[in-house]
Amino acid sequence: MTFSQSAAQDAPMRVAALGGDPGPAALAGANAVRELVSIALDALVEGVRARGGPVPAGGPAAVGEAVARLDPWASAGVGAETAITELSTVLAAGSADPVDPWCAAHLHCPPLAVAAAADLVASVLNPSMDSWDQAPAATAIEQGLTEGLARLCYPNAERPDALVTTGGTESNLSGLLLARQAAAARGPVVPVCGRNSHHSVARAAWILGLPAPIPVDCVGDRMNPAALAEVLSGLAAPAVVVATAGTTNSGAIDPLEEIADLARAVGAWLHVDAAYGGALLLSDRRPSPLTGLDRADSIALDLHKLGWQPIAAGVLACRDADLLRVLDVRADYLNADDDTEAGLPDLLGRSLRTSRRPDAFKIAVTVRALGRAGLGELVDRCRDTAARVASAVTAHPDLRLWAEPTLSTVLLRPLAADELEAELGPDAGDALVAAVRRGLLDDGAAVLGRATLAPFSEEGWDGRDRLWLKLTLLHPHAQESDYLPLLDLIALRARQELAAR
Amino acid sequence: MTFSQSAAQDAPMRVAALGGDPGPAALAGANAVRELVSIALDALVEGVRARGGPVPAGGPAAVGEAVARLDPWASAGVGAETAITELSTVLAAGSADPVDPWCAAHLHCPPLAVAAAADLVASVLNPSMDSWDQAPAATAIEQGLTEGLARLCYPNAERPDALVTTGGTESNLSGLLLARQAAAARGPVVPVCGRNSHHSVARAAWILGLPAPIPVDCVGDRMNPAALAEVLSGLAAPAVVVATAGTTNSGAIDPLEEIADLARAVGAWLHVDAAYGGALLLSDRRPSPLTGLDRADSIALDLHKLGWQPIAAGVLACRDADLLRVLDVRADYLNADDDTEAGLPDLLGRSLRTSRRPDAFKIAVTVRALGRAGLGELVDRCRDTAARVASAVTAHPDLRLWAEPTLSTVLLRPLAADELEAELGPDAGDALVAAVRRGLLDDGAAVLGRATLAPFSEEGWDGRDRLWLKLTLLHPHAQESDYLPLLDLIALRARQELAAR
Repeated sequence: MTFSQSAAQDAPMRVAALGGDPGPAALAGANAVRELVSIALDALVEGVRARGGPVPAGGPAAVGEAVARLDPWASAGVGAETAITELSTVLAAGSADPVDPWCAAHLHCPPLAVAAAADLVASVLNPSMDSWDQAPAATAIEQGLTEGLARLCYPNAERPDALVTTGGTESNLSGLLLARQAAAARGPVVPVCGRNSHHSVARAAWILGLPAPIPVDCVGDRMNPAALAEVLSGLAAPAVVVATAGTTNSGAIDPLEEIADLARAVGAWLHVDAAYGGALLLSDRRPSPLTGLDRADSIALDLHKLGWQPIAAGVLACRDADLLRVLDVRADYLNADDDTEAGLPDLLGRSLRTSRRPDAFKIAVTVRALGRAGLGELVDRCRDTAARVASAVTAHPDLRLWAEPTLSTVLLRPLAADELEAELGPDAGDALVAAVRRGLLDDGAAVLGRATLAPFSEEGWDGRDRLWLKLTLLHPHAQESDYLPLLDLIALRARQELAAR
Repeated sequence: MTFSQSAAQDAPMRVAALGGDPGPAALAGANAVRELVSIALDALVEGVRARGGPVPAGGPAAVGEAVARLDPWASAGVGAETAITELSTVLAAGSADPVDPWCAAHLHCPPLAVAAAADLVASVLNPSMDSWDQAPAATAIEQGLTEGLARLCYPNAERPDALVTTGGTESNLSGLLLARQAAAARGPVVPVCGRNSHHSVARAAWILGLPAPIPVDCVGDRMNPAALAEVLSGLAAPAVVVATAGTTNSGAIDPLEEIADLARAVGAWLHVDAAYGGALLLSDRRPSPLTGLDRADSIALDLHKLGWQPIAAGVLACRDADLLRVLDVRADYLNADDDTEAGLPDLLGRSLRTSRRPDAFKIAVTVRALGRAGLGELVDRCRDTAARVASAVTAHPDLRLWAEPTLSTVLLRPLAADELEAELGPDAGDALVAAVRRGLLDDGAAVLGRATLAPFSEEGWDGRDRLWLKLTLLHPHAQESDYLPLLDLIALRARQELAAR
């Protein structure tokens, strides 16, 4: 067979890699990628330097202006080198960069170099996971990875299984879908979830045509088992209980054992959203706050959080492979009966998507590079740093801590907000907290998160939630000393806000 | 602010890029990526050479054995360089490589080098599109890209809009979801789609809790407007009509103008799955078989098909931005009211996902590199090549053509299958076709698709579909001469199969 060589003569149109011809021409595609990657990384470094901090200053207007000069639709084509240089510089200069410790708002991690490089290999070869004849090796790699992930979630199950998803949102949707189908014979399923649960749970219920979830009260951002028992006792329809292992607001982990007992007693499906906290499974540290997790029917994990993968790297684990069979689907062009009978793996039912990027590849490369325990050590580092930063908050004369961190989230409030609240009421206090966050963002100084929460202990609570500043610490190499000046800056800004009012 | 330098000292744990410190240390992360990419691309070339053809020989067993030696869960970690070398080699050696013209089964494209390199930049910076403070520049880049895509789909609409999705499957689901919500006041919506529609339409209906779609008969793999009129006239509930512009089986495009007239007459939502054919919008060639497309309420596009992007690069366009507002969702930690009021873009409702990779970036870089018309020329090349290969099939003494290609799909059948059918019946003929495809796949010689279809013209048809071999030609630089030996090989294998029976 021959391969048309025209691809190698026109750089912007070069395809990524060449097959078929094992001679020197086979290198042209890979070399085109290599050259463009080199150009792109130079541009990226240039952009990072131009930014100088965790996020660009000036808000959407400033960033939008830089981007508008590079309208992709405006010209006849500027060529690959120019386009990737210009746009990579602008993207890097205009990024909120999680590699900077002061970019700490969200479950938004700095990716490992090895994972990013592996993801490029996936892009170049472009396997699609919806049929074996588009992804022979990628299929086997995914199978090996998901077997291990399933075993990590369910060490004692007979036939656990796991699927790769786009993230916690798709995993939660899939968990609810499995629950809907498992209960179908007993009537429409009713979702029940803590008030601490991620918004994607209610959104999934809406997409799936289920009733809006019944909310269960929390204490200390953890589902209250007594409140769950009451909700379940009043329910005639089959339920799916959604618990959270690592809330977005505080990293709190629901009391999984008690919830599992209650769910089992009424025959409810138990789905645990462990998109954040599930990473503790990688660590050897004991005791684990995840005890009871393996009693869930399905579990959402996200390795683009504590797992340091480029997005997307979501997982849905299930205690029994047979429960996933409701996702099976046949399409003659992808999984014809005679192919399946001949032993070609039938992958179509392993996702709600059809064309599907091999996100398993970068995860597999990372796990093989660092080992499960190596990744677990990075998780432990983040937790240790968070504990130390929390102590520094407690010791700080102008800040107070919400509670000791469970995972790697530190919630804090400037005392200036409490002082303003005493004078002008809680709205004013919250507005001060919001202004500190926004001011640091607008100035390009820091990216802080926000959380609206009851106090950790509800003793003497007035019943109104307050706004807290949130540090979600996902950088495994950042240290307490990286954050101390940030605590001072927050306190200073809060004092300035108070003085200005 | 300081940045912990420990990241630069331990290669496997290096994060991808460094910010915050504009000195030489800022280069360490980017250099770690550069070195690992170089190692990975060397390994990739090695794997492509080892494969030697479009797909590895020996089926799942051979590939699985190579992968099993690299179990990510088996060891304490082998280091980044070793892991990425081993696994990239195995992935490349075990890939069905769409860069090889004889890998032509599916809508599975060879990605452009510039798109793959841009996707690496996205991986390294890892913006997440669910809030502005995780993706300042990526937000603006996505906005510019989707505005242009929306305008391409709806040149005459006042406020068209478009969302980035994981592919046609999510776009079809989103289109049906929009239709469900738009009709909510009039009762549950009923999907109506051609028998030629993609399986994801029925799957979306199932996920969304809608009734199974009512199928509409086709002629020549195109929806029959008379049959649609009959279905719609018998329907009391509000409908969503799903038409196809570029079927997976043959690339046929439904009569969009007539379907739009019928849908409008009954007030039905019209969604067009243009995941394959929508790429014709990039081309300047006229007349376009897409006439009428802009009368759809929503349109699915896929730039990881004719658009040469690494997966994923899906799009959902909608004729009016207001119709997308049903997807709005609020989550205080991502789009607090005071942020939205202050002008931070509210992105959360622009996807069914939450954490979301900036797939818009690679598409924007590609469009800016080649220009819209430059991409359109690549689309035209594929169509021209398909037309020439179709002529070669017609001229071939041992093959027959299903019909002239509409897009870039060529369906053919070895005459040996017809001869066997005349002797032993249609099952035997189809089995011969399946055996030719499987044999070439098992041998690592070629990756051919399959399609079960009625004849293009149904005159004198016996009512039973037949199995055809499918060539989906997505390589913009492959030429007719690349495929002529493949046609001969197919004919030869068919003769050999016939002789062996």
